[in-house]
Amino acid sequence: MSAPVVTALDWVPDGAKGLVRDLRVRWALEEVGQPYDVRLLRFGTHKEGTHRARQPFGQVPTYEEDGLVLFESGAIVLHVAERHPGLLPEEPKARARAIEWLFAALNSVETPITERFYAAVIECNESWADARLPMVDDRVRGRLGELSQRLSDADWLDGDFSVGDLMMVSVLRPLRRSGIVDEFANLGAYVDRGEARPAFQRALQAQLANFTGTAPEGWTMPGKAPAP
Amino acid sequence: MSAPVVTALDWVPDGAKGLVRDLRVRWALEEVGQPYDVRLLRFGTHKEGTHRARQPFGQVPTYEEDGLVLFESGAIVLHVAERHPGLLPEEPKARARAIEWLFAALNSVETPITERFYAAVIECNESWADARLPMVDDRVRGRLGELSQRLSDADWLDGDFSVGDLMMVSVLRPLRRSGIVDEFANLGAYVDRGEARPAFQRALQAQLANFTGTAPEGWTMPGKAPAP
Ligand SMILES: N[C@@H](CCC(=O)N[C@@H](CS)C(=O)NCC(=O)O)C(=O)O
Ligand SMILES: N[C@@H](CCC(=O)N[C@@H](CS)C(=O)NCC(=O)O)C(=O)O
Repeated sequence: MSAPVVTALDWVPDGAKGLVRDLRVRWALEEVGQPYDVRLLRFGTHKEGTHRARQPFGQVPTYEEDGLVLFESGAIVLHVAERHPGLLPEEPKARARAIEWLFAALNSVETPITERFYAAVIECNESWADARLPMVDDRVRGRLGELSQRLSDADWLDGDFSVGDLMMVSVLRPLRRSGIVDEFANLGAYVDRGEARPAFQRALQAQLANFTGTAPEGWTMPGKAPAP
Repeated sequence: MSAPVVTALDWVPDGAKGLVRDLRVRWALEEVGQPYDVRLLRFGTHKEGTHRARQPFGQVPTYEEDGLVLFESGAIVLHVAERHPGLLPEEPKARARAIEWLFAALNSVETPITERFYAAVIECNESWADARLPMVDDRVRGRLGELSQRLSDADWLDGDFSVGDLMMVSVLRPLRRSGIVDEFANLGAYVDRGEARPAFQRALQAQLANFTGTAPEGWTMPGKAPAP
């Protein structure tokens, strides 16, 4: 069996470096000690037919292994966790709860965070942007407050570090610079704890080392006015 | 082993009837022929401590079975699919791809649809609401266009009906009244096909029959002005 192949982009805007979602897959593979190869996509070509055959929305990551082609970071990370020990408890109830947190990260916590990304970045030049952002921030804050209460003073969401924590930390990281995560001291410490894991650090360095490309000719940040 | 218990609300606004997320769990249980009991929550009490111990965000559904308490419709539906034949292919690669579509429904398709719900309902009285909604609609439309292309003229997303289709149909249903789903004829027919399944119809009738409560005193739709 040859090493699985993960797709990644050869360039992204500086603010996205270290946050692109192939990092979740790299992190899972590092946690379980599974080496992998990277298929580096020239930024822009990820929207073309060859990659769309792998990923219908023209995004990264994808995962290829022995003729299986998978997309969705959540599905890939779960697939890795099911095939290697280390990311899911063996006890069936604890295993189901770890998977529950994987879905909570992606469907209860990431949803308002993605909405905030659109509000703060993609819509930042709209006339309503400044009036609306605080409303969206409050929505994110409400959800994080509930998460903070549940985490309480535990290290991880349910027992040992699991695929649920891997995804929850991944989902919270891009929000960190907003300051909202650190309004909840236990959540800030939780993200720090995830990022301190050697497997995370190896995955992060590997993603950063793959940004060997340049911005496509004439590319501008969506929502931001082009440089004068 | 006693029947699993699903939480549901005893009342929701008319527009949400038939769309509350316990329907996904009921549908999965009906597909595999597993009887279940319902723990009906008086609307409002779902935000209190007893239910928050089951669901940290004070939402439905939850699922209880032999001392296991699970939340997240995605996790519950996957749990049901793993324990009973009928919702996941046995062949490992096809099984992984069915789970991939479950995640795609929840993390790639539901995300813009949820954002649109906030734009169209919760923020509907904001001064920017009418200007912004078409932008959000376009984001939804873009994602659905990609989904429509991938579905093409197939009945289901990948081979036979699976947990991925169950969730994708569930995610598209609340958007139907916007008209955006039916801009893509194959997606409209896909949702119809899901809703035509006898298991779906039984689940829907069971949810509707459980709305035996009344609106809490003084309740008004968020974002809508109170009735004069
Ligand atoms: N739900 C998908 C989301 C993937 C996603 O948003 N990928 C981003 C990078 S972090 C992407 O490829 N964006 C480029 C684009 O959409 O053009 C997953 O979790 O895999
Ligand atoms: N990600 C959760 C979302 C659950 C959810 O949004 N539930 C809604 C009903 S459809 C709810 O309980 N809303 C009531 C509230 O938040 O007060 C899941 O899929 O289970």
